[in-house]
Amino acid sequence: MERTINTHTATKIGEEITVKGWVNARRNMGKIAFLDMRDRTGILQTVVVPAELDNASKDLVEGIRPEYVLEIKGIVQERGEKQKNDLMATGTVELLAKEIKVLAEAQTLPYELGSDIHMDTYLENLPFNLRSEKATAVFKIQSALIAGYRKKLDEKDFTEFQCPKIVAMATEGGANVFNVDYFGHKAYLAQSPQFYKQKMVSVFERVYTTGSVYRAEEHDTNRHINEYTSLDFEMGFIKNQNDVMEMIYSVIKSMMDEVKATCQDEIKLLEVTMPEFPENPPQMKLKEAQKVLEDEYGEKGATKEPDFEPHQEKLMGEYTKKKFKSDFLFVTHYPVEKRPMYTMPDAEDPGYTMSFDLLFRGMEIVTGGQRIHDYDMLVESMKKFKLDPKDFEYYLMAFKYGMPPHGGIGMGLERVTWQLLGLDNIKQATLFPRDRVRIDEPLSKK
Amino acid sequence: MERTINTHTATKIGEEITVKGWVNARRNMGKIAFLDMRDRTGILQTVVVPAELDNASKDLVEGIRPEYVLEIKGIVQERGEKQKNDLMATGTVELLAKEIKVLAEAQTLPYELGSDIHMDTYLENLPFNLRSEKATAVFKIQSALIAGYRKKLDEKDFTEFQCPKIVAMATEGGANVFNVDYFGHKAYLAQSPQFYKQKMVSVFERVYTTGSVYRAEEHDTNRHINEYTSLDFEMGFIKNQNDVMEMIYSVIKSMMDEVKATCQDEIKLLEVTMPEFPENPPQMKLKEAQKVLEDEYGEKGATKEPDFEPHQEKLMGEYTKKKFKSDFLFVTHYPVEKRPMYTMPDAEDPGYTMSFDLLFRGMEIVTGGQRIHDYDMLVESMKKFKLDPKDFEYYLMAFKYGMPPHGGIGMGLERVTWQLLGLDNIKQATLFPRDRVRIDEPLSKK
Repeated sequence: MERTINTHTATKIGEEITVKGWVNARRNMGKIAFLDMRDRTGILQTVVVPAELDNASKDLVEGIRPEYVLEIKGIVQERGEKQKNDLMATGTVELLAKEIKVLAEAQTLPYELGSDIHMDTYLENLPFNLRSEKATAVFKIQSALIAGYRKKLDEKDFTEFQCPKIVAMATEGGANVFNVDYFGHKAYLAQSPQFYKQKMVSVFERVYTTGSVYRAEEHDTNRHINEYTSLDFEMGFIKNQNDVMEMIYSVIKSMMDEVKATCQDEIKLLEVTMPEFPENPPQMKLKEAQKVLEDEYGEKGATKEPDFEPHQEKLMGEYTKKKFKSDFLFVTHYPVEKRPMYTMPDAEDPGYTMSFDLLFRGMEIVTGGQRIHDYDMLVESMKKFKLDPKDFEYYLMAFKYGMPPHGGIGMGLERVTWQLLGLDNIKQATLFPRDRVRIDEPLSKK
Repeated sequence: MERTINTHTATKIGEEITVKGWVNARRNMGKIAFLDMRDRTGILQTVVVPAELDNASKDLVEGIRPEYVLEIKGIVQERGEKQKNDLMATGTVELLAKEIKVLAEAQTLPYELGSDIHMDTYLENLPFNLRSEKATAVFKIQSALIAGYRKKLDEKDFTEFQCPKIVAMATEGGANVFNVDYFGHKAYLAQSPQFYKQKMVSVFERVYTTGSVYRAEEHDTNRHINEYTSLDFEMGFIKNQNDVMEMIYSVIKSMMDEVKATCQDEIKLLEVTMPEFPENPPQMKLKEAQKVLEDEYGEKGATKEPDFEPHQEKLMGEYTKKKFKSDFLFVTHYPVEKRPMYTMPDAEDPGYTMSFDLLFRGMEIVTGGQRIHDYDMLVESMKKFKLDPKDFEYYLMAFKYGMPPHGGIGMGLERVTWQLLGLDNIKQATLFPRDRVRIDEPLSKK
């Protein structure tokens, strides 16, 4: 008999169906047992009355514990009005079990699934904890975010490409890279797909890529992970960075729209407030924003720094909400020395660049800008940054043979997820987080 | 003035428009110059008559060479009947230039774009060569293949997840892994997302992931690359491996459908014969296929081997085409010792497994099968493979707490592209190939 998934049971009152899933919880009421059966679509209450079961099934019932995987044949029945209110989570129908098969047993659980646990315990038992309703909701939403990202870029005629992660040199300078032994040669794990996506602009004009990037940062805080998913795009024939800002804003809207369209239950469960998208998101130069920090929040000396402190990002988030009623703020024109060598300087504002960060509720989630497209200018910039153009010959080749004005962005998928859901730690928004002391299991165990 | 992309010019006869792109070729006819302007949508012939140009543009014309990036304002005009036949590639309309701006210059090219070159020259000048019509077509099709892959799985209620590439132990045994220095600890680059996708079955039942995987193989042949894109899925609650085979067949059909729907020009350019999808693709056990090799092709001793030789795969491709009129052949039931320890043995055919390869035109493009879902059975299998279950505690955790019957596949995106397009070397189907001697530039240069 074909399997019925839990969300489809409500339309099958009186019918005999077969469900398959995990025992999310078991409750005994004298001789009757209630099994909350979980599948990918939700939870269904199953009533197990010995007299209704065939003989083989009767013998099984006592041994069934949470996380057993079962196949249950039974009759769908409406739940009483009182029960509907009692246990909303399990819906308006239940299954009266007739026949039970054990597809897989489960050992005694370390603790009840979904318990409030410390981060270390969460990571230690991750393959188990990911089954909890909350964790599942987080990564369902993450999946929707990336789908929404691709949807908008496909619509805008971008071409997806596959970007290598093993690289011969560090993209962004050389600090914080992981070394790989490549047949006896030194290689690195890419910190970003930057050089490749720029090369691809000369092939497809508009490109995007998604995949792992690496930062060998020693810090182990609630905002650090060492391998994360970077969503990147790059577009050619722009007038200036404003075209990039416009594009990323519409992309983020598409990401949030996809979450709204496909994750209503998850939004409710995690109590997420989805952002609004006013037509013209506020934007200001870094200098102006720092002036606000000094004048309105007493952050003395803010204007003398090349970037925000994390607590200042938060203050700017408050300010943006209060002043512009917006969750988003584009901060532009970071100083030349704070941005990579390929960043386009602003001809009209010497010392500053055509770059931006996008703050979402007081946290930077996107970094982007216009890039230098002129070969000679790029070579000069490398020299100013004390880099040897000889080391970049392969990258420079794209510029040697005609590169249009272009720009793009990089965005951390886990960071967006983390900030949207208001989670405590970015590791809760990272499926299998790698940190300073742990790759799945603690490194000290090795 | 807004930019018109080349494919939109045909509907604008008599109008003034602005196009932006690269000079694909330049031809001089006395005082008149023809510039074939390339953008992401195709090529447009531009006619440059000095008398029609403004003064600033006049001075530029002589210096314009292939790969210059230009912005040209002009009038769209119909091409003469004769010319339409002469130069089909540049379409039925042309642009009469009025105003030309140079957005970026190009140095002298190493050779004409699209020249017939040796693989070493191809790789050496890759950022340049990728702009050629043929290379662009290959990677446009590759992008469609991955889009078609996701489309079908999304439709079938699979959830995408992000899989880490830094792992603490080798998934498939331990040979051929790249080592990473992870804060002084030894780590590896993942050979496959296998363990993670199995864990995710206990979260979402049906999952897929796409991303880089690594094989530190010393070989440098036309079929080896060291970093490639693996398309993986895994599905729970299967009856047996047939469910997986049915799913992957429909997924591959979706991939090919997407190519057909979005890449007609590329199919024509590369002279691709798209495969047919008969409702029931042929399948046979490895033993049976080997018997065919012995009986029909004189491959003595084939039945005594645990797998095909590459030339035997080709012969099976011929046989499949002749006998079943199919481009596809599922070969099932590989011997236990040839498959990883997590492969489900066939209870009815001792020594063999519930596994399969999918051959496409005589080359394996997919490996898949049913996995062991029972904890005790998996532990026993590890021991038989001389592996210590203690090393796999994290992986085993998913099985300890109830894992449904499941199976899945892995498929190399570059290999599918290579085989579909009939290219000489898999490096032509890999955007930025890493091989034994090269990461972008030759390793010997370092």
